[in-house]
This record gives sequence, C-alpha cells and structure tokens, in this order.
Amino acid sequence: MDKLHEECGIFGIYDESGSTAESAYFALMALQHRGQESCGIAVNKNRQIFHHKESGLVNEVFNEKRISELNGGHMAVGHVRYSTLEKRGRENAQPLVINYVKGMFAVAHNGNIINYDNLKKKYEKTGAIYQTESDSEIIAYTIARERINSHSIERAVVNSMKHLQGAYSLIVMSPEKLIAARDPRGIRPLCMGRLKNGGVVFASESCALDAINAEFERDILPGEVVVVVRGGKVTSYKDNCGAEKSALCIFEYVYFARTDSVIEGQFVHEARKLAGRLLAKKNPVEADIVIGVPDSALGAAKGYSLESGIPIEDGFIRNTYVGRTFIRANQASREKAVRVKLNPIRTNVKGQRVVMVDDSIVRGTTSAYIVKSLRDAGAKEVHVRICAPPYSYPCYYGTDIPSKKDLIIHRYSIEETRKYIGADTLEYLTFDDLMKIAPNSATGFCSACFTGEYPVLPTDIVPDGEA
Amino acid sequence: MDKLHEECGIFGIYDESGSTAESAYFALMALQHRGQESCGIAVNKNRQIFHHKESGLVNEVFNEKRISELNGGHMAVGHVRYSTLEKRGRENAQPLVINYVKGMFAVAHNGNIINYDNLKKKYEKTGAIYQTESDSEIIAYTIARERINSHSIERAVVNSMKHLQGAYSLIVMSPEKLIAARDPRGIRPLCMGRLKNGGVVFASESCALDAINAEFERDILPGEVVVVVRGGKVTSYKDNCGAEKSALCIFEYVYFARTDSVIEGQFVHEARKLAGRLLAKKNPVEADIVIGVPDSALGAAKGYSLESGIPIEDGFIRNTYVGRTFIRANQASREKAVRVKLNPIRTNVKGQRVVMVDDSIVRGTTSAYIVKSLRDAGAKEVHVRICAPPYSYPCYYGTDIPSKKDLIIHRYSIEETRKYIGADTLEYLTFDDLMKIAPNSATGFCSACFTGEYPVLPTDIVPDGEA
Amino acid sequence: MDKLHEECGIFGIYDESGSTAESAYFALMALQHRGQESCGIAVNKNRQIFHHKESGLVNEVFNEKRISELNGGHMAVGHVRYSTLEKRGRENAQPLVINYVKGMFAVAHNGNIINYDNLKKKYEKTGAIYQTESDSEIIAYTIARERINSHSIERAVVNSMKHLQGAYSLIVMSPEKLIAARDPRGIRPLCMGRLKNGGVVFASESCALDAINAEFERDILPGEVVVVVRGGKVTSYKDNCGAEKSALCIFEYVYFARTDSVIEGQFVHEARKLAGRLLAKKNPVEADIVIGVPDSALGAAKGYSLESGIPIEDGFIRNTYVGRTFIRANQASREKAVRVKLNPIRTNVKGQRVVMVDDSIVRGTTSAYIVKSLRDAGAKEVHVRICAPPYSYPCYYGTDIPSKKDLIIHRYSIEETRKYIGADTLEYLTFDDLMKIAPNSATGFCSACFTGEYPVLPTDIVPDGEA
Amino acid sequence: MDKLHEECGIFGIYDESGSTAESAYFALMALQHRGQESCGIAVNKNRQIFHHKESGLVNEVFNEKRISELNGGHMAVGHVRYSTLEKRGRENAQPLVINYVKGMFAVAHNGNIINYDNLKKKYEKTGAIYQTESDSEIIAYTIARERINSHSIERAVVNSMKHLQGAYSLIVMSPEKLIAARDPRGIRPLCMGRLKNGGVVFASESCALDAINAEFERDILPGEVVVVVRGGKVTSYKDNCGAEKSALCIFEYVYFARTDSVIEGQFVHEARKLAGRLLAKKNPVEADIVIGVPDSALGAAKGYSLESGIPIEDGFIRNTYVGRTFIRANQASREKAVRVKLNPIRTNVKGQRVVMVDDSIVRGTTSAYIVKSLRDAGAKEVHVRICAPPYSYPCYYGTDIPSKKDLIIHRYSIEETRKYIGADTLEYLTFDDLMKIAPNSATGFCSACFTGEYPVLPTDIVPDGEA
Repeated sequence: MDKLHEECGIFGIYDESGSTAESAYFALMALQHRGQESCGIAVNKNRQIFHHKESGLVNEVFNEKRISELNGGHMAVGHVRYSTLEKRGRENAQPLVINYVKGMFAVAHNGNIINYDNLKKKYEKTGAIYQTESDSEIIAYTIARERINSHSIERAVVNSMKHLQGAYSLIVMSPEKLIAARDPRGIRPLCMGRLKNGGVVFASESCALDAINAEFERDILPGEVVVVVRGGKVTSYKDNCGAEKSALCIFEYVYFARTDSVIEGQFVHEARKLAGRLLAKKNPVEADIVIGVPDSALGAAKGYSLESGIPIEDGFIRNTYVGRTFIRANQASREKAVRVKLNPIRTNVKGQRVVMVDDSIVRGTTSAYIVKSLRDAGAKEVHVRICAPPYSYPCYYGTDIPSKKDLIIHRYSIEETRKYIGADTLEYLTFDDLMKIAPNSATGFCSACFTGEYPVLPTDIVPDGEA
Repeated sequence: MDKLHEECGIFGIYDESGSTAESAYFALMALQHRGQESCGIAVNKNRQIFHHKESGLVNEVFNEKRISELNGGHMAVGHVRYSTLEKRGRENAQPLVINYVKGMFAVAHNGNIINYDNLKKKYEKTGAIYQTESDSEIIAYTIARERINSHSIERAVVNSMKHLQGAYSLIVMSPEKLIAARDPRGIRPLCMGRLKNGGVVFASESCALDAINAEFERDILPGEVVVVVRGGKVTSYKDNCGAEKSALCIFEYVYFARTDSVIEGQFVHEARKLAGRLLAKKNPVEADIVIGVPDSALGAAKGYSLESGIPIEDGFIRNTYVGRTFIRANQASREKAVRVKLNPIRTNVKGQRVVMVDDSIVRGTTSAYIVKSLRDAGAKEVHVRICAPPYSYPCYYGTDIPSKKDLIIHRYSIEETRKYIGADTLEYLTFDDLMKIAPNSATGFCSACFTGEYPVLPTDIVPDGEA
Repeated sequence: MDKLHEECGIFGIYDESGSTAESAYFALMALQHRGQESCGIAVNKNRQIFHHKESGLVNEVFNEKRISELNGGHMAVGHVRYSTLEKRGRENAQPLVINYVKGMFAVAHNGNIINYDNLKKKYEKTGAIYQTESDSEIIAYTIARERINSHSIERAVVNSMKHLQGAYSLIVMSPEKLIAARDPRGIRPLCMGRLKNGGVVFASESCALDAINAEFERDILPGEVVVVVRGGKVTSYKDNCGAEKSALCIFEYVYFARTDSVIEGQFVHEARKLAGRLLAKKNPVEADIVIGVPDSALGAAKGYSLESGIPIEDGFIRNTYVGRTFIRANQASREKAVRVKLNPIRTNVKGQRVVMVDDSIVRGTTSAYIVKSLRDAGAKEVHVRICAPPYSYPCYYGTDIPSKKDLIIHRYSIEETRKYIGADTLEYLTFDDLMKIAPNSATGFCSACFTGEYPVLPTDIVPDGEA
Repeated sequence: MDKLHEECGIFGIYDESGSTAESAYFALMALQHRGQESCGIAVNKNRQIFHHKESGLVNEVFNEKRISELNGGHMAVGHVRYSTLEKRGRENAQPLVINYVKGMFAVAHNGNIINYDNLKKKYEKTGAIYQTESDSEIIAYTIARERINSHSIERAVVNSMKHLQGAYSLIVMSPEKLIAARDPRGIRPLCMGRLKNGGVVFASESCALDAINAEFERDILPGEVVVVVRGGKVTSYKDNCGAEKSALCIFEYVYFARTDSVIEGQFVHEARKLAGRLLAKKNPVEADIVIGVPDSALGAAKGYSLESGIPIEDGFIRNTYVGRTFIRANQASREKAVRVKLNPIRTNVKGQRVVMVDDSIVRGTTSAYIVKSLRDAGAKEVHVRICAPPYSYPCYYGTDIPSKKDLIIHRYSIEETRKYIGADTLEYLTFDDLMKIAPNSATGFCSACFTGEYPVLPTDIVPDGEA
C-alpha cells in the first residue's frame, strides 16, 4: 500500500541522437513511483538550457507538443518529486535551472541535505537570496560558490560535496557537461547505463534504463562524481569515496524501489522474495493461501509461499484508475475510497485461512480495513506478516516516515496492534533477517528508522531515543 | 494488455441517505476499466434531474466540489464510456437527460442497438431531430414515443424493448422511478445489489457493488425490467423474458470484466483460471515458469501453472502511471511507449524457459514486442499460450474488435503468427474449451466473434463469412 | 452602462474563398456586445457540417488552431449568446446542429419564441424529446416537421414561420443552402451584405459586415426568407411579408446596437445624437459641460451638446480590462467594482455644472454611484438626462429588462428617483420624442417596454398593466 | 492605438482593515494598461509573506477564491507586467518574494536597471545564482547585500540606490515595513495616497488610488524612499534626492499613463488637450471635423478642436472585446484583425474633410490602414496630426519603442511617410511644443527617444546617433 513516499527520482542523459527530452519523458514515467507531485525536464541545446516543470504527473505535465519543443538537444536532466517537508507545488519543482558566474547549469536532486539551515545562514551572510524552499537551491549555491575557485564545474561539484551533509544523489548539467554525483554514504541509489549508440544515462533506478532500452552499466559509487563531456567521454572523480561508511537506505529494497530494478547488484524482486522466505521461516502458520498486498508486498508473498509451501493466490484487485485527487469528506467516504482502491477477490479468499503479507503498518487504520475486507469476503482466518520490522525512528534522509507520535508502534504493543487491525496473528520480519535480504548488495545499509542509529545527524538534532 | 474495449459501464442507485452522487462516483471508478473516454452522473433531487458529464476519467471529471453539488438526491444514474464507432467526445457522453411529454428522464446505456438506422429513419419521418450520434438518443426517443400510449414509464420501457434490437443494458431514471432493463438475449451484463439501509443498486459488474459496500443480490434476467419506486419497493416485469435464447458475451469472462466480479453466478477470476487449466491440458510444454501478461491474463496464467505444475512467476511490471495520452510520434517512440508500460522482471525470466499466457493477439505487433522484451531479459524459450481462440468475426454488440482486415488471423496462419511474434510455440484455447470456462453461468453465450454465428444481425448486414 | 442585454447576435456567410470560419470569428467579435455568455461557429465543408461552441467570449472559445480546423468550407453560421431566462451554459450554446429526415442543418437564432410552451407540448405528444432549453430546438423541430411535407428546406423555413410566434431572426445552414429569415414583425434586426468576390453575408448588425470588409446591401424584410445556393444565387421568399405591422425594437437604437451600425436605413449614432438633441430641446438646463456615460450614451451627449451649445467633455474613463468575472463579495467590494469600471476625469468635471447623459436608470444603484463619483471629483451640479423614457413593462422578445418589481419606476416617482440617485435635476426623453429618433427607419417600432402595447403576446400572458 | 508598452505598474498598500489583497486586485485592474502579460500580489499576514503570480490579465489570474485566500493581511504589494526584452512568462512575473539574511521581503519594480549586467557579474563573483531574467532579482540581491551592513531594511534600500542605475520605481514589503522608492531622476512615476482609515497607498498612477477610493497625497520625490511601519507612521528618506537632474519620461503624458491620472501635479488629460492645442496652432488645416484615434489620442483631438474651432466628432468604434490572443495568420486576416478592432463611424466621416489626431506612427502599417478605412467610409480628405514628434532613438528605461531600423522615421522622410500612410497632409508636434504640454509638472523630462540625449547610459552603450 502507499504509505511512505521517497521524495524524488532523478534522470540524466547524454545522447547525440537528440531525442533526449523524449527519453527523459519515458524514463521519468518509469520513475513516477518515486514522486507524483511535480516533475520537470531541462535540456541542453547548443549550450543553451531550456526547461519545463510543473505540478502533476509526467503525462499530465508533458504532452507531445512540449516534448517535441524540448527535443533536439544532446543532454537532458529530469526529475519527479514527492514533497516531504510540506514544501509544495510549482515553485519547488525541479530541475532547478540557474545562471551563475560561468553561465548556466541545471540541477536535480534526490535526498535531503541535513545541514540545509547551516548552509542557508552561512550564504545569507554574504548576500544570498532564496526563492524556493528546496535543497536544490542550497546545492546550486554551494556549487556556484565553489566554482569561483575551481577550474571546472565537475571540480566545483566534487568540492561542494565536502559542504553538503546528508543524503543526496545529484545530476548537474552545464553547457558542456553532464555530471552525476552520489553522497559519500550512498544513502540514495544512482546508477549509470549505456545506450546502443554509446550515449550515457544516469537514473535513480535501473527500471528507467529499461524504459529507454539502455543497458545497465554500474551503480555510481558512494562519494563518486561521474562526468560526461561532448563526444561521450566519461571520467570519474573519487575524491570523496571511502570517506564514510556506505549506508544505502534498506527501505529501497523493502518498499521504495520498483520491483524490476537492480540496486547495488541486488535485484529488488529477489530481495523481496527473500524477505518473504525469512519471514516464513521464523513465523510459520497453518494456512490455505498466501496473498500479498499490491504492489510492493507481492514479491514477499511469493517468497513466503515458496518457503512455506502454502500456495500463493491473487488476493486483491488494485484499481489503477484511482489517482491522487480524491473525495475524503468524511469517515464513510474515506472508507469507500480505500474500498475502491483495493478489493478482495472473493472467490480466492472465501472460506480460506489466509496469510496476508504487507510491507508495513503505519497508523494501522488502512491495515484494519484490509483485514476487515478479507473477512467480509469470507476469509476464515487472517494472519498478517510484515516483511520489515516496525519502524520506530524518524528518517532525516528524504522519506516521509511519519513522526513518532503517528507510528502505531509507539502507541501499541505488537499484541495490541494485532487486535487493533483485527488479525488472527501478526508477525514482523526481525531486524537481523532484514539485514540479510540483499545479499548481493555491495554496500552497507542505513537502518536508522528501525534502530535509531543514524549514519549522520543534523547538528541541531538529538537522536529521538535519547531526548 | 489493452487491446479491446467494451464501450460502457452503467450504474444506478436508489438510496434515501442522499449520498447518491458520491456512491455513483466510487462505483464508476470501479467500472472505469469499461470505458475511459467520458463519464457522467445524473441525480434526482426532489423530482428534478441535474447532471454533469464530460470527456475524461471519473477522477478528472468529478472533484469534491462537483460531487457535493450533485449529492443530496435519492436516486442517481452514472455512466463511463469508451467510444467504439468513432463517435467521440463530450456531446456523446452519457447519461442523456431529456424533457418529454411526461417531464424528464435520464438514460444510460451499455451495448449497441443494431437497428439504430431503421429506428432513426422511422422517427425522422415524423419529425424527429438528432443532436448526438449515440444509441441513447434512439432509446430515449423509443421510450418517449411508447410513453404516449403507456400508462407508466416502466411500461414504456417494457414496450420499447420490442423495438430495440441488439445488445443493451439500460438504467432509466424518471422523477419518481429508477428502472433497470436488459436486452432479451442478455448480451451485456447487469446486476442488482442492496445497501445495508435497504437501498437498491444496479451496475454492469458486481465490483461496483463492492466499491460502495452493497451486497450482490442477483443478475437482472435477460429481457427483464426492474423498477424501484419511492420507498424502495422493487417490481419486476418479465414480459420480454424468454423470447430469445440467452447469449451473454463470453469475452466478458476472458477480457472485459474485472477479475473480482461475478457475472451470472460465475466468478470471473475462476473462469480465467479454468481457461488456463484447459489451455495447459491441451497444450502442455516443458518449461521452467509460467507468467501472465497483466492484468487480464494473470488468472489464466495461474490456472496454467496449477494444471501443469510449472511454477508461476511475476513476469512483468505494469506501469500504472501511464495514462491515455501518450507520445507515439514514430516507431522508436512507440516502442518506448510499450516498453515503459510493461517491463519484464529480469531476475525472474533470465535463463528460463517461459510459458507466457495472454488473452489475445490482435495485430501482433504488441505481442511481438513483449516476446522480444522477454528474450532481451534473458528468457531461453518463450511459449505463448492464448486463453481464447483467435477471433475472426466483427462484433456488432458494442466492442471494438477490429475489422477483419486488421485481425492477424486473416493475414497469417497460426504458424506464421508464431514466427511473426517470435515465439517458440504458440497455442490457442479451443472453442470447445472456451465454452467450458464458465460452468456456473446460468446463461448461454454469444461467441459470434469466434464463430460468426450471430444471435441477431443488423438487417443490412450479410455475415462476414458469406459476403 | 451595462444594464440590459439582448440575448444574441447571429451571422451567416456564403464565401467560395473558404475562409468562412475566420470571417465568422471576426464578425462574431464585432457582434460580441450582443452576447458574452457563449458562442459558436458551424461550417459546411463538402456538405458536412462541423461545429464548435462553448461558454465564453469569442476570443476565449476560438483560437488560431480551432479556426484553422474549421476553415475551408464555403458556408458558415455563427452565434453569440447572452442568456435571458436563466438558461445557462454550454448546452444551450448555439448554433444548434441536428440530423433529421433530410440530413443535417445548423440553426442560429436571435429573439424569443413566445409560443415555445405550446409548440413544445404539441411536439411532445408525438414523441419529441428535448435536450436543451433553447428556442433553437423548438425552431429546429418546427423546420424538421415542416420539411416532411415541403419539397425544400427553404420552403420548410417559410412554412415554419406560420407556427413560430414572437421575435426571431434566423440563419439556417443545410448541406446545400444558406437561409436567413426574419419574423413578420421584424422585431430583431437582420441585414445582408456582399463580399467583393460575390459572397453573401447575413448579420444582426452592419458592424459585422464592416469587420470583414463586406458591403452592406440591405435589411432583410420583416417576414422575408432569403436563400443562397451553391454558386451564390440569391432568392427571396416573401410569403410571410406584410402579414403583420412591422415593429422593430426601438431599444436597438437607444442601447443594444453598436453605434457604428445602420439598422433599417438609420445610422444608430445619428439616432442617438437626435435623442440627445430632443432631450436638450425639452429639458434645457444652465450648465458648463455635457458628459455622456460610456459607451452607449456618448452619442446622445454629443446631441445634447450640439443642441444646447454647452460644450461636451470626456467625463469618464471606462476600464476596458474589467471583464465578466469579478469580485462582488460585499457592499464595499461592489462599490470598488463600479469604481474601477468607470472613473471620472477629475480635471474635466472639477468645479463644473455637469449635464450627465445616460441611456437608462434600472435599479438606480449604479446611477447613484456615478453621480456621487462626479461630486467626489468636484462637480458643482449634476443634471441627469436619460435619452429614453422610463421603461415600465416587461419585454417578451429576448431582452432582459428586469421584472416590474425591480424597476425603479415602480418604486419611486421621478422626483423620488432624482433624490435617490442624488441628482440636481433629472429628466427623461418623452415617448413622443423617442418615436422621432430614427426618422430614416423604414419600419414601425415595438415600444412595449414603455407603453405596454405588445405587438404579439404569449397566449398565457395577461399584459402586466391589466393583471 | 496600441503601439508602445511600458513594462509595468506597481502598487503597495498598508491598511489595517485587512482587505489588502482585494484592494490590490482592484488597483492592479486600474493599472492594467501598464502591463497585460502577467501580474501578481504578495500579502503580509502576521509577518509571513504569501503570494500568487501568473501569466495573464488581473481578472484571469485572480478570482474571488484566490483573493479571499490572500486577504486578511495588513500590507500588500502588486504588480502588472509587460515584458520588454523578450523576457517572458511566469517565471519573470512579479512581485519577487525572497528569503534572505533577515527573513523575507517582496519587491515589485517598474523601469529598467541599465547596469544590470555589471551588477550581475559583480554578484556572481561572490557566488550569486539567478533564477529569473528580471531586474527585480538584481534589485533584491542589491538590497540583501546592503542589508548585511545596514541596521534596517529601509536603510538597505536607500543604500542600494547608490548601486542601481537607470529607471526604477520600487515597492518593497518586509515583515514589518512597506517601502516605496523612486530613482534619483524620477524617470518612472510613483505616487502616494491615503485611505479614509489612515492607511497608506503607493501606486504608479493616481488612477489606482481612485479605484480603491484613496485620496491622492503627493508624488514620491525623485530619489526619495518612503517607509510605512506598523501603526501607519510614515517616514521619508531623502539621501538620494537632488543628486541627479529630474527626468520624468515625457511619454507618460503622451501615451503611457491613463488620461484620468495626475502625474507630478499635471493632469494627463490636460496635457493631452494642450498637445492638441499646440498642434493646431502650428499646423492648422481647413477641415470639417476633428477625430481622435482611441483611446490615447482622444484628449489631443479635443484640444485640436478647441484651438481650431473645428468641431470634434467620434470617429471610431473601438472593440473592447478584442483581447490579446488573436488570429494573424496572413495579410488578409491581419487586416481583418485591425478592422475588427477599430471601425469608423461612417455617418460621422462621410463626405467630410477630417483631421485625424493620433499619438504616434511607428511602422506606418497601422496608420495606413486607419487612413484607408476613413476613406472607405467616405472621408473626402484625411489630415493626420501626431501629438508628439517622431521618435528616433531607442529607450533604455523600460519601454518597448522599437529599434531604429523598425522606426518609419529612419526609412522615410515625413513627406514619404505621408504618402505611405495615404494622408492628405501629415504634421507632427514640434519638440519645443512637446516640452510645453505639462506646465504644471514639477520635474524635468527625459526626452531621449526624441533627442538622443540620455540622462544616463548603460556603460556599454554608445548613443545610437554616434555609432
């Protein structure tokens, strides 16, 4: 279910064939699950940067006419955004396109700069003005300031990374260069692919490469800066690599990423299946069928079924026409809203003892409705299995995990939660098992939302558990 | 895959609680798969009929403000439309709301009146004028004319059915009554449900009842007219029942209906699983996994897996953010368009011998792409299994099966088709097996698109095979 | 000031050059003062009729793309509409385009059919259905029914006029013909012009001819039907001419028509100047300047000045950017709304004894504000002169003169009115003088709104004065 | 006629009553003639600044809902914009609202900063980034930088003026203060008024004060900074006054300003009448009537008539429904476009010897059409009188006088121009007479567009005449 939202997906392309805006359009559509609030594309035509960005989904903001107007350049940057910090609307849409001492650049960003306030104050003292509330503006300032004493834009990006703290994957496009960078901890994913004609592509997830028929090449390293220049030559700067322990957000595997993506060498779908297997191993139950809550828990349900031998069934129809805007006037219409979104397939669940696999329980209200809808459809028993531990700590790295007081874990024990959602049994994946779900992944993980052990903290924040 | 489109879904509600517009909104959203071109809702407030209709999806055309303006009446009629005969846009949107000799009524319709031209000419001769190109207008004229010599609106509807030929499920709303009617052959589905407060609901499919928490009561009989009056009393008129052999469109089970609906006592999902089982029985193959093409073939894939013992796997990610408007400028962008819509899950198909179950092959181009995408993702073999026979004849009852010349079956033999789409093997469900997929269904079936045996023909049409 | 609104302007063109939609666009813009609620254009391309209509001003509803799509035919019909009877919005927009026994036609109408209800009931009894609330639909039905026993569309129009009572100027466009018709009393204007290439044009007012560089030829006679066929041959049918006493709405000269139009041989501007002269002759006053309230009273002010010898001055700036949508939340914002619309030119009125000429006083509130604004700007005296008598009776012929209870004349005596609006003196043109303002006009006049003597009455209406 | 466009109108209000957004809405409507491309309003509610800005006219961008959302604060800033330097659209709309070292401020600007490039480069060198192409951003940077070493925002504004060269009238709104400033030469106008409740208003022209019933108090002095603080106390800073010779743009009187405004003590309407008188004195002609081209030349026509004794007549109907968007596909449609905009009143000009007064001749094509339309309407002679000298030099201060090569004066002699536009005689106001048209004005004038004598020049520009 849609409970958490990471704030962004980013995309960059170098392609001499010139259909860069069209490619960005399709790639952003493949990244749409990472942000549905606004989107934008900036293109580079003959060293001039043009862009369009707006609130709305990719296929609302862009139509054939707009894409054909933007097409024709050899580089493009794209962005989809979900706002986390109540920073809304058009004026915070990305990419941010700016003029500065060396001309223009565009920047798109995924993550959260945790020393935003410090940098903002520092720059203000020398006369900076701010027209948005987005990290991108702080990043742009940092690069622009570093550029004064750097002999190239890529060097300015490398040097900027010493000032920027937190989670960030970046694409920067200057008149001459396309640059991808990932924070030294690699908290947010970023990968690189190749077009058949030698063109270079960067994207938050590999599914965006598939969408434009680009071949996955590799992940950008934590701390790495990769530069593409005219002609397609690729150079890597590793000055900031290795400075920090890598800490990829483990929730990318559990929930954020699309199931057909590969992140750090680990297929997301396989990770989810493994989570399901581990869950089944530790938390067996006698039941007739296993079902997953679409879409993100379907892989884990598969794993649970494979491990337990209990057959998997399609449990729900998810209505894909239900969009963002929606009537929620009162309790009755809110219940109808969930009902129209997710309907049990009665023939499959009637009279069955059901294992229902989901990825999380946030406030509990949605889970309670889903369990009830299964019982209404005739399920004899409903055993809820969650393919992650309960998250208990806020995330400072660009997701919208609710604050402590909204998390059911802080109000109820697991047994109370079970009662609240109306399940016969309720079990979570253990933290130890969670750490095993991405065995192919080359990096370490950030699991702060489960453990409170933050790889890096805003200077003004005392970790939640200790306050 | 989205290949065929039935033209409409209809909905009617009698509910003293007054939130009839809101219920229609959610119900139409559940019926959205039956028509994405336009939609509309008409409500009855104190014997006055108000309505809004427009091109677009339900959640584009209606927002909270509009629904709250329409709310408050005790009856409503709703409609979603997909245009079949190049009759486009706003002016053909339904429900049609008219004034006539006895005041007002609204009518919504699913199907196709095959003697439209005859009736149109007949009425013209006495001065009729036409402002739309939709069947609803002919239906409204027929009812209005019958009303002159009928003592009630429901009697006028009953009498009108003697004039209307073809496929039609209707909802009519007058100042005092809500009326549902189904053609004597029952070609299009129509069912009835109950609200907890005793309210009455009619809908094309039971999934719309689920969406508003109404309980399924029964299907409307072929030829039946059901009337609800103030207070909720329900009366049935069966004058036209039994006059014709029942002939429910079998493709409702294969493709059109939502998998969680029950039509004529038969769960759609079960019918699809059974189709898969039968397909597996007749057309076994040695393979490693079975995958279904989302969404309509997933049930059949499940059945194929169960019967064959070959494990089922998730084969594709379907991008639900891809809407109707879409860039299709050239071959390359068209291929990207399919690619972004449906992406193989590489980890599942790599190195595997794959049975790919789909519901139909129309022109073959999409199937060819999908097979190719599986091979690109590493599939060793791709065995295509289609859970219906090839359709060979045009449909006159409200679906958009392409004309003969566009059907691949008329250009290629099955072996040629196999080569064209690049499959290792290709098999279709036999017609005899197709007739077995809905064993619980109480009705006979129309299978004209497979056999050319039409239950009723437009007077000016010579069946395709004989021309 | 904008107080009254006639409901429509109509336009028809026969032009082999093919830019008929563009000509209609410009002509409707010139007729925009006759209706700002909705507009539409229907064109005839190779005997097919295409159209677009929508709520909004001409330059909001039509853009370059739409006009170029509609261009290319040899005939077009256009319409601008102001709704009088609370019949609002898109569904009542014109032209009405219909199918009927002989194919298609489009019809546009200006006026009011007073036996609408009778005809509606009559047709309903034979099965007619109504989708709009506009006279055009009744007119279309009447023509369609007459067409059954007429050998041509023009003959059907001629015969229809025997059934249609009230005020109407019509343009009808069939696959082959363009037809203009005017009711036997000629209550609404309709004229004919010629393009340089021999093309024929019909329009409510001659200013629309000027806009497309057509030469004024003549007015359509009361009761006349004029037909243009392929090749441009023009035929006139006078069957209905002379049956009734002609009765052109005198208020066309006073207020409705544009000042640069010629109606029935009388320049509107000259009629207004003459009204001003007659007003000055009967109602002299010692003053320093004469000013007119823009736009319709400027001509009368000129006449008042010429007759009295008191110099004319520009009195107000009218803000032409103020559109229809407007904030009117409360009394204060309503006053600001009038203020921003009409601002005195202080330098001209300061210290002056002012004669302010206006065309009418409806509710009195606007007049009171305007007088106050002149005093605020320093006027020493304000003498109000109205270039028509007070209107006292409702209009049944397509204008929105308010009902009796809203007319100030029914609440206040003239002296009380003077006090209410804050004028030093207040005088109206006498009815006898009003009858003299269009000496060149070939027709008689309808002056029912002043006298209650209606040329024709709805059968269910008892004249206001006698009730 | 619409030939030149000044780029902006600005408005600021301090009003404890709280309807500041509504007042800004009406005031901007009164200033709409100064800019029709985009507009915006920023309000201050409890020290927070909220704003909305967008492309479009005031009554397109703002509706009742938006205004009521913005209402409730005690200060507001508004702006209407016409783009001069191909800087288009939404992203350059004003007011600009920024965060900086001391919190927030909003700024709106009318004029042109001629050392924009120098300042931009200077700030870039310390790390500035630019998100727009508007002067406002440079102004905001300048103030933000000055604020670092100033103890107050008003002091920062005063100090900024030492850096800003060119023409500028500004409104700045901080959390606590409303500040108006005018460049030391006073090139663009800016005045101050009082509400009845003691509130303070600033506006480009006094007509905006009239619109909201504020009383004109005085013009802001060239170089002056006026500050309003909570409670309504007004303080004036004159540090920059007197440093330069005052140089109000003389074309404000001729064309830009609304005729009911007072600028620097001179009624615009009187200035225009005087221009007409002087024109008549120097360039008499034997004729029957004088007409003015609406709207800006109507005052001068009045003056010409008064001086010459030739009676004034209404010459044209200007169609106020013709908006900005318009079909101009080809020569024929362009001519129709002018025709529908301005139509001669035939009855007034037929058979007459006409003096036609206009304010300028730019490219000559429009003038030629207008003269032709008068002859088509029957004018015997057309004597064109222009109430300003031909302008010959580019404007660097925020107007869009075309470049030299587009000015007819550089292609034709006056005699050739006369022939080109088809006039019988053609005369311009002399420069000496132009200098006399605003005798009450307290300031000197900028007349660079006529003389090439620029009060201040961009450092990189060599005056046109000398290049």
